[in-house]
Amino acid sequence: MNILSSDIDSMEKRFRINFINSLPGFKSANLIGTVSNSGIANLAVFSSVIHVGANPPLMGLLFRPVSVPRHTYLNIRETGHFTINHISDYLYKRAHQTSARYPDNVSEFDECGLTPEYTELVNAPYVKEAQIKIGLKLVEEKEIHSNATVFLIGQVEEVILPDSIILEDGVIDIEKARTVTISALNSYHKTELIDRLPYAKTDRE
Amino acid sequence: MNILSSDIDSMEKRFRINFINSLPGFKSANLIGTVSNSGIANLAVFSSVIHVGANPPLMGLLFRPVSVPRHTYLNIRETGHFTINHISDYLYKRAHQTSARYPDNVSEFDECGLTPEYTELVNAPYVKEAQIKIGLKLVEEKEIHSNATVFLIGQVEEVILPDSIILEDGVIDIEKARTVTISALNSYHKTELIDRLPYAKTDRE
Repeated sequence: MNILSSDIDSMEKRFRINFINSLPGFKSANLIGTVSNSGIANLAVFSSVIHVGANPPLMGLLFRPVSVPRHTYLNIRETGHFTINHISDYLYKRAHQTSARYPDNVSEFDECGLTPEYTELVNAPYVKEAQIKIGLKLVEEKEIHSNATVFLIGQVEEVILPDSIILEDGVIDIEKARTVTISALNSYHKTELIDRLPYAKTDRE
Repeated sequence: MNILSSDIDSMEKRFRINFINSLPGFKSANLIGTVSNSGIANLAVFSSVIHVGANPPLMGLLFRPVSVPRHTYLNIRETGHFTINHISDYLYKRAHQTSARYPDNVSEFDECGLTPEYTELVNAPYVKEAQIKIGLKLVEEKEIHSNATVFLIGQVEEVILPDSIILEDGVIDIEKARTVTISALNSYHKTELIDRLPYAKTDRE
């Protein structure tokens, strides 16, 4: 069937949110760790983390204008740091629970049964229970005028992971780390490798 | 193990690209369809499509500065339109092949065994073989100064999909559509649903 923009406009709000959130396909599943100047550690699920560049090593993620994970954004602005922690299959329930609306003075780590872990380099908490953890410093942010969201870019300062999952060519075997993927807003999926393809070439090469 | 930014800097180039591309987790797997003013249909794999907003319905994706999929970006600038087509398990080999460096006057559709399909609303080709197809118009672009990439935002004009995969609450069952997910640069994975969780609430609610 063909669904036009006028059909989308007339969808019931929650239906439309679910529908449009399904459109990009499978998404990355991460917990973003931050801390406020007053020392309260914050944790929030994000499915918008993408690769921005390898040299310098940059990741980007999108922030909604005023809705749920506002603390995360404010903390990053205050401290200049955040962490990205892969959500694994044994973590997804606790991870999802961080999206509940806890009061300002409460840490999602405590409420959701996860453990903050700090290193000297990054002023933001890692999730101790995660297999793959990335510490970043804020380097840039771009406001999207169309809907007042913010695309924020961080530079990788530190990566913490088991060395056994780094393959010979530098690829990290994230399936072995039991990293999950999200579809729509709240569906968690595990994965099974189909194929690793070589760099594509034309018949002419 | 802890890998510091100085360790990343000293990685061999291809190793670093694979490593950093693995860090975000699983990514969306899409073919972006465009057409040049001279009528040559272009198709390119992107793993950076993310949800930007539901009202208006917006998707974003990241373009590398000068490297491979340059035609896609130029075509979008020319026509103002592009399509996003989910890569399914029966499509991934042909999809991956579009990333080979074909000459300007050649269409990846012809070279990779895929069929362009047009509607009246969108001046860009859909992939006929795809299950889930989204037509968009360009609404905004943001240059990331840190590495001269471009984050481009499109507004959804049209969605073409089987109505049998739209669930009662608006979620699209993309697993049923056999949509795959990408890790690193070239690993394709199928998925298996673990759980769909309800909207998270605190004990206080």
